[in-house]
Amino acid sequence: MPLLESDAKGVFVISATPFADDGAIDFESLDRAIDFYFDKGADGITILGMMGEAPKLAMAESHEVSARAIARAGNRPVIVGCSAPGLAAIGELGKASMDLGAAGIMVAPPGTLKTDSQIVGYYHDVARALGDGVPIVLQDFPLATNVHVAPEVIGQIVADIPEMVMLKHEDWPGLAKITAIRKAESRGQRRISILCGNGGVFLPEELARGADGAMTGFGYPEMMVSVTALVAQGDMAQAQDIFDAYLPLVRYEQQPGVGLAVRKHVLARRGVIASPMIRPPGRGLSAEAVAEVDRLVSRQELRLKAIG
Amino acid sequence: MPLLESDAKGVFVISATPFADDGAIDFESLDRAIDFYFDKGADGITILGMMGEAPKLAMAESHEVSARAIARAGNRPVIVGCSAPGLAAIGELGKASMDLGAAGIMVAPPGTLKTDSQIVGYYHDVARALGDGVPIVLQDFPLATNVHVAPEVIGQIVADIPEMVMLKHEDWPGLAKITAIRKAESRGQRRISILCGNGGVFLPEELARGADGAMTGFGYPEMMVSVTALVAQGDMAQAQDIFDAYLPLVRYEQQPGVGLAVRKHVLARRGVIASPMIRPPGRGLSAEAVAEVDRLVSRQELRLKAIG
Amino acid sequence: MPLLESDAKGVFVISATPFADDGAIDFESLDRAIDFYFDKGADGITILGMMGEAPKLAMAESHEVSARAIARAGNRPVIVGCSAPGLAAIGELGKASMDLGAAGIMVAPPGTLKTDSQIVGYYHDVARALGDGVPIVLQDFPLATNVHVAPEVIGQIVADIPEMVMLKHEDWPGLAKITAIRKAESRGQRRISILCGNGGVFLPEELARGADGAMTGFGYPEMMVSVTALVAQGDMAQAQDIFDAYLPLVRYEQQPGVGLAVRKHVLARRGVIASPMIRPPGRGLSAEAVAEVDRLVSRQELRLKAIG
Amino acid sequence: MPLLESDAKGVFVISATPFADDGAIDFESLDRAIDFYFDKGADGITILGMMGEAPKLAMAESHEVSARAIARAGNRPVIVGCSAPGLAAIGELGKASMDLGAAGIMVAPPGTLKTDSQIVGYYHDVARALGDGVPIVLQDFPLATNVHVAPEVIGQIVADIPEMVMLKHEDWPGLAKITAIRKAESRGQRRISILCGNGGVFLPEELARGADGAMTGFGYPEMMVSVTALVAQGDMAQAQDIFDAYLPLVRYEQQPGVGLAVRKHVLARRGVIASPMIRPPGRGLSAEAVAEVDRLVSRQELRLKAIG
Repeated sequence: MPLLESDAKGVFVISATPFADDGAIDFESLDRAIDFYFDKGADGITILGMMGEAPKLAMAESHEVSARAIARAGNRPVIVGCSAPGLAAIGELGKASMDLGAAGIMVAPPGTLKTDSQIVGYYHDVARALGDGVPIVLQDFPLATNVHVAPEVIGQIVADIPEMVMLKHEDWPGLAKITAIRKAESRGQRRISILCGNGGVFLPEELARGADGAMTGFGYPEMMVSVTALVAQGDMAQAQDIFDAYLPLVRYEQQPGVGLAVRKHVLARRGVIASPMIRPPGRGLSAEAVAEVDRLVSRQELRLKAIG
Repeated sequence: MPLLESDAKGVFVISATPFADDGAIDFESLDRAIDFYFDKGADGITILGMMGEAPKLAMAESHEVSARAIARAGNRPVIVGCSAPGLAAIGELGKASMDLGAAGIMVAPPGTLKTDSQIVGYYHDVARALGDGVPIVLQDFPLATNVHVAPEVIGQIVADIPEMVMLKHEDWPGLAKITAIRKAESRGQRRISILCGNGGVFLPEELARGADGAMTGFGYPEMMVSVTALVAQGDMAQAQDIFDAYLPLVRYEQQPGVGLAVRKHVLARRGVIASPMIRPPGRGLSAEAVAEVDRLVSRQELRLKAIG
Repeated sequence: MPLLESDAKGVFVISATPFADDGAIDFESLDRAIDFYFDKGADGITILGMMGEAPKLAMAESHEVSARAIARAGNRPVIVGCSAPGLAAIGELGKASMDLGAAGIMVAPPGTLKTDSQIVGYYHDVARALGDGVPIVLQDFPLATNVHVAPEVIGQIVADIPEMVMLKHEDWPGLAKITAIRKAESRGQRRISILCGNGGVFLPEELARGADGAMTGFGYPEMMVSVTALVAQGDMAQAQDIFDAYLPLVRYEQQPGVGLAVRKHVLARRGVIASPMIRPPGRGLSAEAVAEVDRLVSRQELRLKAIG
Repeated sequence: MPLLESDAKGVFVISATPFADDGAIDFESLDRAIDFYFDKGADGITILGMMGEAPKLAMAESHEVSARAIARAGNRPVIVGCSAPGLAAIGELGKASMDLGAAGIMVAPPGTLKTDSQIVGYYHDVARALGDGVPIVLQDFPLATNVHVAPEVIGQIVADIPEMVMLKHEDWPGLAKITAIRKAESRGQRRISILCGNGGVFLPEELARGADGAMTGFGYPEMMVSVTALVAQGDMAQAQDIFDAYLPLVRYEQQPGVGLAVRKHVLARRGVIASPMIRPPGRGLSAEAVAEVDRLVSRQELRLKAIG
């Protein structure tokens, strides 16, 4: 599998980790999910992210998921989330995944980092733990990590570490950050790929600001694929029409602590995974929430028909 | 002015605090804003909330804003936000506002509260600081306060403190909390009013779960008024159609740190306030953001026409 | 009163704000406390700090405390703590205090600051709010503020803002920070005064690293005065002997959430203030804690006798 | 090895995890450290705690350390720290360690827990993940976890989960918590063992309040052993004399972010471990800090001689 490069574009779907009702990993559903993402037009996938319930897996399970997903994806790129409290665990899973053929490794900063220079230092440590030449994706998600990475800090990391090729952008608000990075690049900073997360809730604006695509796990990846393609073609109006049709569900899914359950419900409803099971302490959707989601999906289908 | 009661319903708009370009309070714009909110159908207003830039006012300014708004509102209810690091400041502004005719006082818990019993104890202290008979609104906004108030804690506060009449609900995710409170009430807990914040981004679902209305500062309060009325009439489909038309802007406005600037831009654009000025360290919208908002407003107008 | 300068040295005691048992400010005790601090050898005092229960005062009370303390101190320097959620309140109390004769204004960064450049920007805003020529003390207390100020950020603030004359140092661990700042100064950075807080618990080491003195409210300010003087004279051994005699109580007092109550108990026990009352939600010492403190004080007296 | 019971008393030393200068685990030093702790009078040891750099180990390394330490300890009790972001990892290491002969498993609450009932629910999940009959130690360390466990929450956990046998107490301030728990037990709550952490900095008072001993990694475990024994014999004065002799170093060691490096330096200086190496992002002591520690150790030796 080719390595991730800093000109990567398009949609990398954050893959769910499917479980059977007894909590065991459901590898057949994982295969189906990977096929589904690529069938819907994804350019790559990202496994073992926060929404992939990575912290809930035992280490052996993480290795198994990584191996299975990389094998299934074939020659299409798989990014492996390796965020962990310590560098040894990052190096262990990261190197093993690269040996299996991963395209790159995604790491979010731990909440213990407090100052700009600590954040820069941390990515030096990560690069050392992964070894030369392993492409790194910086997951910038302050709402979850409580670490705030200023644009100039990203610039310093990009300048220092050639392996840093991509920003998974989910700062919030983050539109100004995309603009700041692209402006710095126009003044000479090395260009990196920016793929946007946050459930896609600001995707049209993010793309218009200079992002290269999406990296998130919304249950209808075809939305991200269409919107990204339309903006790339310059058809912002049609991109927004399609986006708006999905927005009520995007919004619903974006609730912290509930989003994963919504996604798994949608994926199960679409026949992709066998069970919407999530591991504790997470919980599935209440009956009220299932009804709300199903209602939003019905309205979404009508709206999509209306806009052709 | 009548006191706030626990059967309050409808829309209480969170009022912006307008400033002139030099940063001074613009009282004429404040008058216009209050008139505007009521003209658009608001049942009441809430001043000196977080979005009202309350922490950026000197104490004398807070008193002046409170006096002016209460006078302008006439016999319509005004809730005054009095959250402060200490109880003396809460009591000082709260009592003065009640003397001027406020309907009730809103207080968010300070971030120093860590356990359930500390939160309950705090509202006892607040009730004591305000004095007997002053209606209290609990602002439950963990994203901003970092205090998480479990439904059973709200139940305890409601049981202990008769003055607690309303929850400004902006927990996130919070739909399950509305359901939990209403279920507890069906088993005998004293019923309180629940008005929802979070920019209105979950308003249709919140109302369907049992909320009584909205309390937020979205720049088109007529959306909240229509949606609240339609759900009350049982017309969920039409409520959602109208909501969906505004949703792209609701979503955009909900970005933390940017939302206030968007609201003031929209209010200035609508001719309600003279300047979108916000006090530092807040900043106004960038040129890119202004263009994005203006584009969303244009699309919103077209969409509203389409749904009649 | 002369303005605070960047070569200030010695001990500035953080003054308690005494209350009567009914919670009202006890101005006579405040007078006695100020006299007591100077009698014990203080070079200045700092009022309305966190340990001065500043956030629990109404704004009018803050002005009264500031006026009374400055008047009582006469021509000796008084620093006024003006930390507040908003710049208007900082400017309001800060300017009024300077007009009354304060030597300088102390401001801690608010918890909303997340990146290095936001912290630098904030002190620009503070300097503007206070006006030209008002000496500023940066209170660096991450345990309370959750803001981490790297040494290079302090360097930037010092370079940008001539009014920044002093660091109230209570980072933790912070010895390395003192060394880093003094090294930067040896390479040309403008020198500022560093006075250390944290209850004095690392005072001998801090002074040896290059701090200029102490700024904290330990109930026996004579300890800080002796230790600071002895280290300045080069007698580290005697400084540590005296420090060690007080250390069991220093340590006890340093418990967060209890320290203020210990200090007020000690001050009341010593006859300085009339009542150990603290305003809610703070609470006084339990009977067990009073016995522990009294026991530590008795042992401390014996130990001091033993070392002569 | 016998299982940990709720009447455990004495000193359980938190073991360092020794590394060679190249960062590899130094198992011979680990053996020596375990022997050293028991030679100095420890009643048990705790491995893979926060100070044991547990988060910096790869999973296979954690298993190796657990196996080696349990084997070396022979029939003396070893508690294994298994805190992890997810339950699967806790169950994996916990069960493996119990199979090897561990006495019990220590788990701190993750920072995602926000309300009292979430904390109680989490320990139900932990007990389920570990299986029936596995003794659990609740590590209550809010400064590191940001989770605040009220005494009544501990009471609920103790009532619900028979496997909960011990509290590693390092709340801060925490003396009142010990008193609250012991009072609840005097009213019928099941009694558990309380061993105190926080580097031992409040040990005499904690024991006098009803704690059963210490669980911390201070580099002179003989201090904890002596103080615990003397308080148990009722000789508080001698206990405090010994404690006070060590206090300057206890205090120095307690600096967050530096304490581990101090402990490893002391252990290396005492010939227990071969190298003071700590894994990044942690760092060793600066030359200034080494000099400070060495000076404190020299003074400590003199002081101990003086008190006989």
